[in-house]
Amino acid sequence: MTRTVPDLPTPALVVDLAAFDRNVATMAARWPGTTLRPHVKAFKSTALARRLAANGHTGFCCATVREMEGMAAAGLGDDLLLANEVLGPAAERLGALARSGTARVTTGVDSVETVEAAAGAGVMEVLIDVNVGLPRCGCDPADAGRLADLARSKGMTVRGVMAYEGHLMREPEDGKGTKVQAAGEVLQAAVEATGGDLVSGGGTGTWTTNTWATELQAGSYCLMDTEYVPHASEFENALYLWCTLISATEAWGVLDGGLKCLGMDHGDPTVVDVGSCWFVSDEHITFGWADGRRLPLGTGVRVLPGHVDPTVASHERMYVLDGEDVVDDWPVDLRGW
Amino acid sequence: MTRTVPDLPTPALVVDLAAFDRNVATMAARWPGTTLRPHVKAFKSTALARRLAANGHTGFCCATVREMEGMAAAGLGDDLLLANEVLGPAAERLGALARSGTARVTTGVDSVETVEAAAGAGVMEVLIDVNVGLPRCGCDPADAGRLADLARSKGMTVRGVMAYEGHLMREPEDGKGTKVQAAGEVLQAAVEATGGDLVSGGGTGTWTTNTWATELQAGSYCLMDTEYVPHASEFENALYLWCTLISATEAWGVLDGGLKCLGMDHGDPTVVDVGSCWFVSDEHITFGWADGRRLPLGTGVRVLPGHVDPTVASHERMYVLDGEDVVDDWPVDLRGW
Repeated sequence: MTRTVPDLPTPALVVDLAAFDRNVATMAARWPGTTLRPHVKAFKSTALARRLAANGHTGFCCATVREMEGMAAAGLGDDLLLANEVLGPAAERLGALARSGTARVTTGVDSVETVEAAAGAGVMEVLIDVNVGLPRCGCDPADAGRLADLARSKGMTVRGVMAYEGHLMREPEDGKGTKVQAAGEVLQAAVEATGGDLVSGGGTGTWTTNTWATELQAGSYCLMDTEYVPHASEFENALYLWCTLISATEAWGVLDGGLKCLGMDHGDPTVVDVGSCWFVSDEHITFGWADGRRLPLGTGVRVLPGHVDPTVASHERMYVLDGEDVVDDWPVDLRGW
Repeated sequence: MTRTVPDLPTPALVVDLAAFDRNVATMAARWPGTTLRPHVKAFKSTALARRLAANGHTGFCCATVREMEGMAAAGLGDDLLLANEVLGPAAERLGALARSGTARVTTGVDSVETVEAAAGAGVMEVLIDVNVGLPRCGCDPADAGRLADLARSKGMTVRGVMAYEGHLMREPEDGKGTKVQAAGEVLQAAVEATGGDLVSGGGTGTWTTNTWATELQAGSYCLMDTEYVPHASEFENALYLWCTLISATEAWGVLDGGLKCLGMDHGDPTVVDVGSCWFVSDEHITFGWADGRRLPLGTGVRVLPGHVDPTVASHERMYVLDGEDVVDDWPVDLRGW
């Protein structure tokens, strides 16, 4: 017997497979094959990643060593980039993975210490991580050549640079292209000083405006969230939370999903069709009824998350729907650190 | 060899056991034994719950059926209250637990539908959940007697009422007592109409001002967070996130913990001693240095979460410290739904 969405235990994270596939096709038309390096942090699922690999995107980037290890164990280790910095025990784990021969392992480095940690652990391929304006990781562009030379002096291969213009993802469309272009110009001196073929960067919010990346590091585009849609409107919401209405008055309703199954850093989720969110508690969403249309208790209600990455990370699995039918189950198997 | 906190893989959630034990003792002095019904949703760990049970708090309340099932499986099922409403498959699971005989199972009910679902599933003990001002679950006080009669007509035992004055947890101290007292007065008619011995309610924020509960439903008090301290200042922060400094400039530092290991609904976490948080990304915290005191890369840094419940729920385990020594490991084994 086919299971349908009302059969799911709630709260349940659900993927609309047709919308997901449309998002994948839209992105692949502009960034085909390995010109897209999907960012595993957005979905933390080897089952989902396998679907992208089948579409030709066989190189991935990760934010954690756990993601790297899990992708390699799932046979998805053709070309894994840790788009992050690691030191100490985390670098040792990454080195063990590289030495195991189960994956091609490349890591970002942005300091003498991270170059030395990678070399010491046996991670022999690096990208120089260059800061192009977001106050987070990445070296000063003027230091990139020096770090590349240091890495080569230790026998490492410098595959190129990476840079994330994350501060521009949510820029208004008018003017975004110019600013992304300027970030690329900041990067250019580092590209020349570093050597190597790769310029890895960008994201869902700059998928049409980034002209300097040789490979795009986008992850959110395939599932999407309410916060990103205005900044990448070619992609559609393919992920939602399926909840049950468990309590109601004439004024408000209460759903059985809350803070523990929704990323809240981009604000409240969107209650679809039936009302608007008032507030979110640990295990509840309280919303006001739209147009006084009170529903019967036990009704299923769809909720769109504000931020895909932490929302997915709070679930054990995503249920995959073809229309109303549950056709698959993607474990979120790359959680934790 | 004793493991110490710098040996932990980061980001790591850490409990200061001495502070935890002081919090437990402080609460037990006012709410000893079963007058405290610790709320499992705050910590989702049977190992932690076992420590509270050893202190005499052998009755617990839960927010999810998964928590109920896990507590029973761990042998902590003396008196488990689902302080929530369930319908459909969730009610069926709760009924299966009640019929298994591994736990005493009581559930909240606030509607004809939830009474019927509990009765149909075989959950034969209930509390009438009464709304005292927070727009969430709970029936109108005037309906409590009718629901109690309905439950008894189905052969159920009505153990009393529950009510959560959650809208008053963060009231200024001046005047909080009066408002909590008023909520109790709203509840009084329902208590009389319902019958039963229990008046289950309150929380960490009203632990000194709630005079009407026969048992307090507090959970946050034992671990605490930065948001709650001003509202329950007798308790201290016993929980923090241990991170590694992985990147730095003269102006800012970057830690290897982010949105996926911190509840963000109460705002940014607090970077302890070394600086102040600028923003949190999926896997990073960017903070500005205090007083220009830049630390070496690889240094461990403590971060205090804004909200304990979703923070704990995003981790697989809590590491327990006696000073700097890691003396125990509490799995967060009650996550999910």
